[in-house]
Amino acid sequence: MSILVVGSIALDTVETPFGQAEEALGGAAVYFSYAASFFNHVRLVGVIGEDFPEEHLKLLEGRDIDLAGLERGRGATFRWKGRYDFDLNEAHTLDTQLNVFETFAPKIPEAFKDSEFVFLANIQPGLQLDVARQVSAPRIIACDTMNFWIEGAYDQLRETLKAVDILVINDAEARELAREPSLVKAARQILDWGPETLVVKRGEYGVLMFNERSVFSAPAYPLEDVYDPTGAGDTFAGGFMGYLSTQEDINETAIRQAIIFGSTLASFNVEDFSLNRMKNIEMQDILDRFAEFKLLSHFEEVET
Amino acid sequence: MSILVVGSIALDTVETPFGQAEEALGGAAVYFSYAASFFNHVRLVGVIGEDFPEEHLKLLEGRDIDLAGLERGRGATFRWKGRYDFDLNEAHTLDTQLNVFETFAPKIPEAFKDSEFVFLANIQPGLQLDVARQVSAPRIIACDTMNFWIEGAYDQLRETLKAVDILVINDAEARELAREPSLVKAARQILDWGPETLVVKRGEYGVLMFNERSVFSAPAYPLEDVYDPTGAGDTFAGGFMGYLSTQEDINETAIRQAIIFGSTLASFNVEDFSLNRMKNIEMQDILDRFAEFKLLSHFEEVET
Repeated sequence: MSILVVGSIALDTVETPFGQAEEALGGAAVYFSYAASFFNHVRLVGVIGEDFPEEHLKLLEGRDIDLAGLERGRGATFRWKGRYDFDLNEAHTLDTQLNVFETFAPKIPEAFKDSEFVFLANIQPGLQLDVARQVSAPRIIACDTMNFWIEGAYDQLRETLKAVDILVINDAEARELAREPSLVKAARQILDWGPETLVVKRGEYGVLMFNERSVFSAPAYPLEDVYDPTGAGDTFAGGFMGYLSTQEDINETAIRQAIIFGSTLASFNVEDFSLNRMKNIEMQDILDRFAEFKLLSHFEEVET
Repeated sequence: MSILVVGSIALDTVETPFGQAEEALGGAAVYFSYAASFFNHVRLVGVIGEDFPEEHLKLLEGRDIDLAGLERGRGATFRWKGRYDFDLNEAHTLDTQLNVFETFAPKIPEAFKDSEFVFLANIQPGLQLDVARQVSAPRIIACDTMNFWIEGAYDQLRETLKAVDILVINDAEARELAREPSLVKAARQILDWGPETLVVKRGEYGVLMFNERSVFSAPAYPLEDVYDPTGAGDTFAGGFMGYLSTQEDINETAIRQAIIFGSTLASFNVEDFSLNRMKNIEMQDILDRFAEFKLLSHFEEVET
């Protein structure tokens, strides 16, 4: 079973209270792929520019990430420049140069069309729907989005949601999408529009999962310092989909465990800039931290 | 084993997006006592004015709350007037009339001095310490505080912390007290200053507990609407201390369960104004919701 991801590939320049990174490897599809690669084979569809460093391609190939869907456009690679202050929940964008990403129209290679797990990272909702329709027999289609599309392509996004099994967004996006300040009511509204599962990312406050039958609250790992939150959401999605893709039955048990694996990967990722922390962990580190999440949230039942 | 609480008794006028309450029964010691009374006998020390309605006293007595430490001062009862907007995490104080509470100097009746569980609700830290010293053989002393004392009586508060086993405050207060933006580092600092356990209330994001050995993350109950958050923190403390006082061994298992009981009581309390919701629940409702907290946070381990 393989995982298909479609999304951005970027060179990020990031400043936080703990340091900075210059033109470091980033982008939603990259963070997602790397995290998912701990669990399964990943197929990446995205676009890079003529200036994209060869070493980054080698890094991804070394993780068994299939780059057959990687397009090299004429011009420069997508660049993002941002700053985080002590409130690391909020990114301040200093500069965005879309470059080759501006006209990105994902083409899914024939060999990728049998992908069973599909993650539509944050791109224009019409393009997301287009990708969803090109895949022949998906088991799970998950997607992300952002305020820009909620505000600027609302109707298209609503169409896309009909084709999506799992929506993975943050709490402000969920409230804005449903136009509802109560997160619980917003979740119910969004589930009505298509997705069977809504996964709400809340940064340092963990993750909430809603479906028709239940709610799951996952803690965040209590880190002393978050060095760079860039890519945390996509890393979460990568760990989440990566684990799911190893499961025969995508039931609630698997989804809850997948959320903890996603949280685990994200907690590692924010401990350093770019993908630096993920480059230095192995599956055993992930399993150890998963076990720590269990201790973190465990309490005994009482007799009733 | 009985519980002693020292703190405010108030008449609250509260406005939220869902309605309002006029001169309703409130105050930290009242919310605490009512919540704790589901578990054990409570002894209340506080002050009311000449205008305090008799019906409120009957309500508390009806819950087996001992009012022998209730002082009736000359003048009016403490009044607080506040408003919450859609962000129900933040109270906007419109008016505070301390009245008889301004010169409150708690006197602990002889018969209360053998109390084993003591909760020092938010009052001047010097008075808190004074109460702690009047109790002959306490098993657990817990306390709350607020930004006003952190800023205005810092040294006294640090003294008080030396006599306290469990500090129960919110996340902004923890950061301000330790003068440290990282909550994990702030917690470590505060534990160094005396308390063996730090319980950090985070409103709609649940509770974090820190001690020397571990961290526990408790979810918040996902409510559709929070009608009135007034008293949620003291109700939490009441459920927390109430359950603890029924336990022979105050170990980590008991403290984690107590945090869930506190969260349970608080989740009921915010469903209506004043103590209205708590007046309409029984122990079985509390146990049922405790079980819901278990479902809310449960996930299966994985093989490692």
